[in-house]
Order: sequence, then C-alpha cells, then structure tokens
Amino acid sequence: MKYTLLQCQEIIRQKMEQFPFDSLQPKELYEPLHYTFQNGGKRLRPALTLLSCNIFSDQVDMALPAALAIEVFHNFTLLHDDVMDKADIRRGKPTIHKKWNENVAILSGDVMMIKAYDLLLETDEKVLPEILKVFNETATQICEGQQLDMNFESRTDVTIQEYLRMIELKTSVLLACAMKIGGIIGGAGTNDSHKLYEFGRKLGMSFQLQDDLLDTYSDPHKFGKRIGGDIVANKKTFLLLSALEKADKNKKNQLLHLLNSNDDEQEKIEQVKNIFDDLGIKEITQQKIMLFFNEAVAAFESLEVSKNDKTELLDLAHQMVKRDY
Amino acid sequence: MKYTLLQCQEIIRQKMEQFPFDSLQPKELYEPLHYTFQNGGKRLRPALTLLSCNIFSDQVDMALPAALAIEVFHNFTLLHDDVMDKADIRRGKPTIHKKWNENVAILSGDVMMIKAYDLLLETDEKVLPEILKVFNETATQICEGQQLDMNFESRTDVTIQEYLRMIELKTSVLLACAMKIGGIIGGAGTNDSHKLYEFGRKLGMSFQLQDDLLDTYSDPHKFGKRIGGDIVANKKTFLLLSALEKADKNKKNQLLHLLNSNDDEQEKIEQVKNIFDDLGIKEITQQKIMLFFNEAVAAFESLEVSKNDKTELLDLAHQMVKRDY
Repeated sequence: MKYTLLQCQEIIRQKMEQFPFDSLQPKELYEPLHYTFQNGGKRLRPALTLLSCNIFSDQVDMALPAALAIEVFHNFTLLHDDVMDKADIRRGKPTIHKKWNENVAILSGDVMMIKAYDLLLETDEKVLPEILKVFNETATQICEGQQLDMNFESRTDVTIQEYLRMIELKTSVLLACAMKIGGIIGGAGTNDSHKLYEFGRKLGMSFQLQDDLLDTYSDPHKFGKRIGGDIVANKKTFLLLSALEKADKNKKNQLLHLLNSNDDEQEKIEQVKNIFDDLGIKEITQQKIMLFFNEAVAAFESLEVSKNDKTELLDLAHQMVKRDY
Repeated sequence: MKYTLLQCQEIIRQKMEQFPFDSLQPKELYEPLHYTFQNGGKRLRPALTLLSCNIFSDQVDMALPAALAIEVFHNFTLLHDDVMDKADIRRGKPTIHKKWNENVAILSGDVMMIKAYDLLLETDEKVLPEILKVFNETATQICEGQQLDMNFESRTDVTIQEYLRMIELKTSVLLACAMKIGGIIGGAGTNDSHKLYEFGRKLGMSFQLQDDLLDTYSDPHKFGKRIGGDIVANKKTFLLLSALEKADKNKKNQLLHLLNSNDDEQEKIEQVKNIFDDLGIKEITQQKIMLFFNEAVAAFESLEVSKNDKTELLDLAHQMVKRDY
C-alpha cells in the first residue's frame, strides 16, 4: 500500500514515544533522551525515509529502524549544536544543557548517537553495509558543516558560495541521506538512489534558504520564532551575504554600520530590512529557492517509477518549501 | 604467523599515524584528531583485538580496522570525559578543550566517534552485524559508566558493589569488547568469543583496581602521574570505599574529617595513607586484583585452542596488571 505523509509521521511518532528511555538507568543519562523524543518536532526526515522506501516497496516497515535512526541522529546534532551555540530554547522548551547541565547534554548526546547506530543495525543485513556507508559520510559532513558555521561567526569575508556549501553540509545532506537510505531499503537501484539523494540535497538547500527568508520576512502571527532574530544576531545568512554583495559602497557601509551598532533591536531589524528591500533581497532569495527547488523536482521526476508512486513525496517537498508558518 | 605484542602495537602505531587528519578540512575540526592520534598512548586495546584474532587466524589484518575503531572510540571517550571532568592534561600534553576550546572538543569528539564506526565498516560483511552489535552495547555501557562516575562525585553513600559496577561499565567492557571482536573476526565460535569477553571483562576489573592502587602506592619515580591525586581529589576509589567500610567509628570519622579538610595536600595524602595502612587497604586491594585476575585467566585458559596460541595474550594480561610504572 501507499502511505500518506500523515500516516508515516504517525507511525514514527508512536515508535519514538515508545522508546523506553524513561525506564533506563542511570536516569541522568536517559531522562534527556525521553524529554527529547516526547518533544516531537515535525519528524520530516524519517517521513522522507519511509516515503522514499514506499516508492519502491509496499513494506515501509523495513525502513522504519533506519528512519528512526535518522531522526535520533538529527536530534543528537541539535542537542550538541545547542550546547555549542549556547541556545536556551528548542521547540518551545528549555534545551537539555539549560534544563540539566552541559555535561548531561554532552553525554546524553553521545548515547543518542550510539542509539542511532543501534537502530540502523535492525535493517536487513543485505543492505546494511551500503546504508551505513551513506550514513557515516553524511554524519561526518554534518559535523564539518557545524564547524564551518561556527567558523563563519568570527569571519567577515564569508562568500555566498561558502555559505551555500556550509548549509549543504549542515542541513541538506541529511535530507539527501534520509531519502537515499529509504530508497535503498525499498529496493531502488544505484541510479534511482542517486537521484533520490540529489532530490534531497537540492530540496535541503531550498528548505534552508526558505528558513533564512522566513526568519526575516514571515508573518509574525504564523512564524513560531521571533521575526528578525538572524538580523539581531548578525547571522551571516543568504540574505545578509547577498545584500553585502549587491550593495554599492554607500549602502554597504550603512549595512556594516548597522551590524556594529547597539541600536534598539526593533530599530535595527527595521533598518536592515529597509536595505534588504531596496536591494531586492527577498526576490533574489525567492529566486534562489525556486532554482534549487526546480532542480530538486527535476531529479525526482527522472526517477524511473510511475508518476503515481511519486505523488506523496512531491507533495511533501512542496509543503516543506512553501511553509509560511 | 603469530604476532607479538610489540609487532601488533607497531602495526597500529603506523596505521594511526597515517590517518590523513592533518590534511582534512575544516582544519578546526580535524586538527584535534591529528593531535590525538600522533600522541600515542600504549594502544593496548587494539593490540588486544589483534592478538585475540591471532589466536584463531594468522590473518590479523582482517581485524585491523576493528582494532583501530576501538582505539579511536577509546580516544573519543577520553576527549569528551576530559571536557566533562575539566581535565587539563592527557598523556603529558594539554587536553583538546584546553589547547583549543570546549566547542572544538565536543565536535571533534563527535566526528571521532563517527570515524570509529567508519573503520568498523571495513570489516568483512559476514561478521559486521555481529561485531557492530557488541560494539554498540559496549559504547552505550561506557556512557552509562561515565554518568555513574559523575553521579558518584556528589554522593556520599556509594557502595563498593556500585563502584565495581561503575568501573566495569566505564573501563572493563571495552577491553572485553576489544577481545571478543578480535576473536569473532578471527573465526572464534560463540563459546570462545564469550570466553574472550569474560577474560577481557575480568582483566579490565583488575586493570582498573591496579590503577586505583598505583595512584596511591606506586613508586613516584616510575609512575607517570603525581602520587596521591585521587586522595587529594577525594575520589571514591576502591581504596577509599574499602577503608570507609572497614574502619571503626573512630577511624571513619578521622577519614571523613580528612576528606573535608583543606590541609596541605602532601599532609592530607600522608594522613589518609596512614589510615589505609592501618586498615590493610593495600593488601585488600591486591587481593581483589588477584581475584579478578585469576578469574580472567581461568576464562582464558578454558578457550579450546592450543596452549601455544594463548601465550602472547596471556603475557600481555600479566603485563597490564603488573605494571609498576
């Protein structure tokens, strides 16, 4: 049978809420895992794995452990990133290192990563080495992406190209991996699993750029986070880097002055946004998002399966990039 | 052919020094790995893997990736433990979080753990699921052991039994895993690989208790670290817990008073040692070490292979527990 996104998310939610972390010892180690996995999130990545498997096979159950592994690994990266970024809130609740402490966050993250590998191990032995290889490459790249992201904080000469490579490593490859692994488990051949990877990689790029855009330009009533957070934090997003590249000397100086200012935050957001508007940054970003999105869809359309089998995943892709919450 | 310990250590040293971490990007992520793996250590764990394989097979090369994986994983645990324990020095050099910073130490540790899994993947696919299972169980237990160790710092009611369970998790199971995986790769059956595991587990217990003993009772000219560090830090070692258990009310009060005192460190070491001596703690610990060691050897002797094939590993076991450096 063909599963819908909602069905996949429900399968995953049930499984994750059944993880027995609330009964494992020592509780200081496992309570943060329980806290994390009860705390939802949209579970898009594991849904991508199940839906990718479902293109080639009716038995999405085969891909369930790997789908869970990807979600657990994703949560591990968020946990350690939150420590490194000193973030206080995640999904509306205190981060692990805030609710407990840094040591708990480091060690619970470590055990979470091991748990991801443990889940992968439940996959059919015939495809295990192949999916482990994809998974390891991806996991390594995510660490590289996080390191680049941290490096960029103290650099003033980050190029748009470097930024795109960073988000590819930090965000896109996990979507790509989620889909490729799902495809492999479902029985996709080398060509199709590569196409799924490319679909995920390009989709991830548009997804992250959309995230950059929404941070500045979304409807405050629909957006979960505070609008303009990236501007206040001088975050080197696609928007800011594009503005710095496109601005003439005068505008660039204005922008750099604003970045260094200690003005009222709301005032700073307004002024930076005005410069963005003058330079057409919203439209430039939207074009880039559509470019990646179209490349993603093209890779996906070239999969050698019936159109009908592709519908659900394509719908999800649209949903991921057109989110205006 | 049968390899000696020195030959095994040399094979491992060469391989580890050839890791290309000095040329990988971003350098902030990979330099700490280069620093760690150039920085030696005795490489006992991977040698145990190779020698365990060598009991059943002449081709120790088959076990080399797994041996390296175990050493890399061990170094990952040291790296994150050093962050959590705020340790400044490791193997006579500054720890990663001291030489760089905490974020570097967290993220380099993460990528080190992934590297361990990557190395494991080079093992013959026929035994891969089995060794991954042992490895994951062990890795999880090591995290549990570290958490217990941290919990013990703030507890005043730690029992000897709890302490022994903690060092089993934190230290012993990795030696056990190193041997079992080597055996499995070499072709050991279920019985023999279980015996190797038990050998490693009991050897690990005597190894760690020996470590506790040496911290207080070794020859300062031969011991690499400062004598009495555990006493100064009020570390709940087998020695201290045994003393607290064996002491009468008067001696126990003296000991507790010393633990809470801010006396001169050398004075504190002397006085605690005097109480240990009065209670015969050195002998009690030596007996416990021998008990575990004899159980280890008994498990090993029962392996169904020729006596000749066991010599080198048995020599190493003796060497590990009789180290008076």
